Amino acid sequence: MAIKAGPEIDRLIALLAKVPGLGPRSARRAALQLLKKRETLMVPLAEALATAADRVRPCSTCGALDTMDPCGVCRAPGRDDSVICVVEDVADLWAMERAGAFRGRYHVLGGVLSAIDGVRPESLRIPKLIERAGAPGVREVILAMNATIDGQSTAHYLVEALKDLPVTVTRLASGVPIGGELDHLDDGTIQAALMSRRSF
Amino acid sequence: MAIKAGPEIDRLIALLAKVPGLGPRSARRAALQLLKKRETLMVPLAEALATAADRVRPCSTCGALDTMDPCGVCRAPGRDDSVICVVEDVADLWAMERAGAFRGRYHVLGGVLSAIDGVRPESLRIPKLIERAGAPGVREVILAMNATIDGQSTAHYLVEALKDLPVTVTRLASGVPIGGELDHLDDGTIQAALMSRRSF
Repeated sequence: MAIKAGPEIDRLIALLAKVPGLGPRSARRAALQLLKKRETLMVPLAEALATAADRVRPCSTCGALDTMDPCGVCRAPGRDDSVICVVEDVADLWAMERAGAFRGRYHVLGGVLSAIDGVRPESLRIPKLIERAGAPGVREVILAMNATIDGQSTAHYLVEALKDLPVTVTRLASGVPIGGELDHLDDGTIQAALMSRRSF
Repeated sequence: MAIKAGPEIDRLIALLAKVPGLGPRSARRAALQLLKKRETLMVPLAEALATAADRVRPCSTCGALDTMDPCGVCRAPGRDDSVICVVEDVADLWAMERAGAFRGRYHVLGGVLSAIDGVRPESLRIPKLIERAGAPGVREVILAMNATIDGQSTAHYLVEALKDLPVTVTRLASGVPIGGELDHLDDGTIQAALMSRRSF
């Protein structure tokens, strides 16, 4: 809604409202706070957005986002080239890196297969994954898709697609999240945790 | 937290996380979505921020934000020059304008008096308000402070400061919000609504 403060503010609020996490109301509040923190936040943010928009590109090897190509993770020395962890999205790669438990390489699919949305293997980075998984020295591919129906369908498709290569294909364990309470978990998770139970 | 995607993305996420309404987690998500909507959202938002930072200024008359000075509301013909509505912040002016019930002029204080935070009358736009309220033709000043302790203290200060001028000083009614349920209202609101009860 126009707020009679000139087209520049209206336009700023309209664009802020499209940022995930902000709505029309919080966009107005954000615009006012940004105008109050003009030098410390608003101008630096405008520059950071312009710089990132200009310089950040998908890595031609793994599909992650970086200003370098190959990206920082693909370049990093001392990571294990024999293991490739396949994730749906860059956000998942970041989550894995925050967890700090994986020291191999990644492959970002850029989505999941979906008949309804018309996402076919060629729309994702699956051909590139098969090429990388077939390279000498690769011995394991970890399918770290989300535990959703589309994620798991995609994982099953990849198991088939990779079955003729000399690599072990694994997936993340299903179970009770650390700190999770049984009472708040869905039946499927409890069933999976029970079936994969381990002895002390 | 650094996410190994280059300093440009880290910096973008750090700045996005400072925008009111976004936190560290939603800033990461917002950064990824912005990079996916590079041409339709990210670049236009960078430009809108830079333009607004450069061109939007407080109105020297009322304190509202606009690219023009005096602002659009102060310039608007056909508004009633004899009534000034005093609000704490530009957001409150916008809220009044959205409600569409007021056709006079505004005065934005830029905050409320607060002994604890060291906000004194000179820190706010109170001298300018007294000057405007004393101008010929002004007959009413509406104090539309928020119904908070600091807001109401500021209103009482203004009642004193304006008492020698030939203007009527009024305030917004207190009562049950439209659509509000008594069960969810605080005692003070119910008491105020009862004391100001009206006959059908």
